[in-house]
Amino acid sequence: MTDPTTHPAPAPFTAADFAARLQRAARSAEAAGLSGLLLTPGPDLLYLAGYAPVAITERITMLVVPVDGEPTMIVPRLERPDAEETPGASVFRLEDWRDGDDPYEAAARLLGPGRYALSDAAWAMHLLGLQSRLSDTSYVSMTSALPMLRAIKDDDELERLAAAGAAADAAYREILGVRFAGRSEIDVGTDLAALLRRFGHSQVDFTVVGSGPNGANPHHEMGDRLIQHGDMVVLDFGGLKHGYGSDTTRTVHVGNPTDEEREVHEIVRRAQQAGFEAVRPGVECQEVDRAARAVIAEAGYGEYFIHRVGHGIGLTTHEPPYMVEGERQPMQPGMCFSIEPGIYLPGRFGVRIEDIVTVTAEGGRRLNRTPREMAIVE
Amino acid sequence: MTDPTTHPAPAPFTAADFAARLQRAARSAEAAGLSGLLLTPGPDLLYLAGYAPVAITERITMLVVPVDGEPTMIVPRLERPDAEETPGASVFRLEDWRDGDDPYEAAARLLGPGRYALSDAAWAMHLLGLQSRLSDTSYVSMTSALPMLRAIKDDDELERLAAAGAAADAAYREILGVRFAGRSEIDVGTDLAALLRRFGHSQVDFTVVGSGPNGANPHHEMGDRLIQHGDMVVLDFGGLKHGYGSDTTRTVHVGNPTDEEREVHEIVRRAQQAGFEAVRPGVECQEVDRAARAVIAEAGYGEYFIHRVGHGIGLTTHEPPYMVEGERQPMQPGMCFSIEPGIYLPGRFGVRIEDIVTVTAEGGRRLNRTPREMAIVE
Repeated sequence: MTDPTTHPAPAPFTAADFAARLQRAARSAEAAGLSGLLLTPGPDLLYLAGYAPVAITERITMLVVPVDGEPTMIVPRLERPDAEETPGASVFRLEDWRDGDDPYEAAARLLGPGRYALSDAAWAMHLLGLQSRLSDTSYVSMTSALPMLRAIKDDDELERLAAAGAAADAAYREILGVRFAGRSEIDVGTDLAALLRRFGHSQVDFTVVGSGPNGANPHHEMGDRLIQHGDMVVLDFGGLKHGYGSDTTRTVHVGNPTDEEREVHEIVRRAQQAGFEAVRPGVECQEVDRAARAVIAEAGYGEYFIHRVGHGIGLTTHEPPYMVEGERQPMQPGMCFSIEPGIYLPGRFGVRIEDIVTVTAEGGRRLNRTPREMAIVE
Repeated sequence: MTDPTTHPAPAPFTAADFAARLQRAARSAEAAGLSGLLLTPGPDLLYLAGYAPVAITERITMLVVPVDGEPTMIVPRLERPDAEETPGASVFRLEDWRDGDDPYEAAARLLGPGRYALSDAAWAMHLLGLQSRLSDTSYVSMTSALPMLRAIKDDDELERLAAAGAAADAAYREILGVRFAGRSEIDVGTDLAALLRRFGHSQVDFTVVGSGPNGANPHHEMGDRLIQHGDMVVLDFGGLKHGYGSDTTRTVHVGNPTDEEREVHEIVRRAQQAGFEAVRPGVECQEVDRAARAVIAEAGYGEYFIHRVGHGIGLTTHEPPYMVEGERQPMQPGMCFSIEPGIYLPGRFGVRIEDIVTVTAEGGRRLNRTPREMAIVE
């Protein structure tokens, strides 16, 4: 097993990588009948141009990628030096705007009439600015127009996702040895965050420690509750390593579980396995949700599985493809997503089990490798 | 002087506070000819309803505040328990939507025909979803429709902003005693972040350490550069304490400055003072920018002051009112904003001096109180 603390950092992406991605994106936009793509700070811009401003603010930064023509990024004048230093800077042109200028005028000069796909999390204020200046343009969200823009990971990305998964797994193995009973959820969550960092995460995005009844709230993060002997504890944690995400969940038990707790955990484990086995190129994403959900429904717990079974992961810990009823996108090799069914019994306890899985020609491959059976902690 | 480490935390805002704010917001919306307000996670929602989800994700959360009728928040089903526990939960109704549902249908049931102001940083994807479902609605950004929604701070907010400012001042006083020469910008920035936390900040948003030529890039944060004897060093730092922002800049010198460095620093100090003296109720915000800029222009450095003179501060460290040419909003008592002129000499050095200032009936009151004269460090 690779030691995640000593594994060398992967080589950074180069201007050639960004040029190839921009080319591919422009061709995808053309095939989708778009006039171009508008990328704002966040994962789209990082993926296609390697650029992330120090902060995302009210000052608009936007990379315009026309179907034909040169990609051009508009940046606030005072961020121009940062933009010039970005690894992808040689593959796009820069235009700056100054405080007091109308930034949408600068954008308008770059946008011909037509239909553009815009980064999902672009500020509504900026979209409204473009809409009001440019009556002959229309807009659609990136996820609705090109949901697969970043969904298929190349080998260099898969290497990073595997490294992030291995680091999260190492953190899980270590946490099994810490004391749970008598300590607060925040104490255990702080341990988890420190472990993720020790194993190379530069950023910790979440450390859910849902003990006893708190585990029945899937978005409970952690609190002052003291963990008790007899508690189920949902541990869901992740962040970024080498710029790519980890996200894994295991549900452990403090001391010996009851028969019911054991049974519910086993149902979720089987559901997770069923979801995993549904992974195959060409199969619709929603089939993974259905396969996992069927196991839980047949066991009589359908109403207690209250979220989709998973989401994509890459430069962010939540992105397309979403593994949810209604998502008819076919799976393709290189996609990476979570499979994380759960059962939540209000006021009592919850169980969730989650692995990141990538699609290969043969089926699914797990990027998390720790046992999914219930671990007993102290 | 109050010791920022021992000053007690202010009492939390209550449901009554949120009810009053919602009422006032609805009346402002009516006066602006709007049908209502749409508030998404971020400072607007925190201000009006006390709610901040654990994470801002692709799943829409939105508080609909109609001009007439009951405020209603739509939340993802799995975040409902968190939303129910929020301090303002008694002042709005909750409606949830489940993964696989169309969330815009849930929103559409709450929105009659009309014109709505939407939080600036709402996801463009969500705005596009609303626009496509509801052909009889139109949208405008909060900053363009109701720029003053959160701009006038009440006494409880001013207390928090003053506490954040005092903590930042305490951090500055301490940093003057650390070693600069021979250490990297990142080392000094790490010291600054630790000091902000020591003086009660729960979050550090930025720690700019721009030494020598790096100081000439106003958005340089910090890097590996070793600070040298003879460097000017721009220190710009802030974050949140008790939920409210700090943001102050001082430019120090390692050892004795040259005559030119002393002169440029003094011009910026005088410009900052001129901006401060322009603060008065009823005067347009742009006059603060003009007053500071005039000092720098008259000294022959106009082309080297490349950003607006300031921005509002409150629940965020960047919000309206923006102190920029073209902003004709009159200043009103309770507004809080930065005044931060700078001169940036490319390849050589930069100087910026920044205080947070609040408007009173008589004029401006500084929330930062450390000397603005150039300090000499080692």
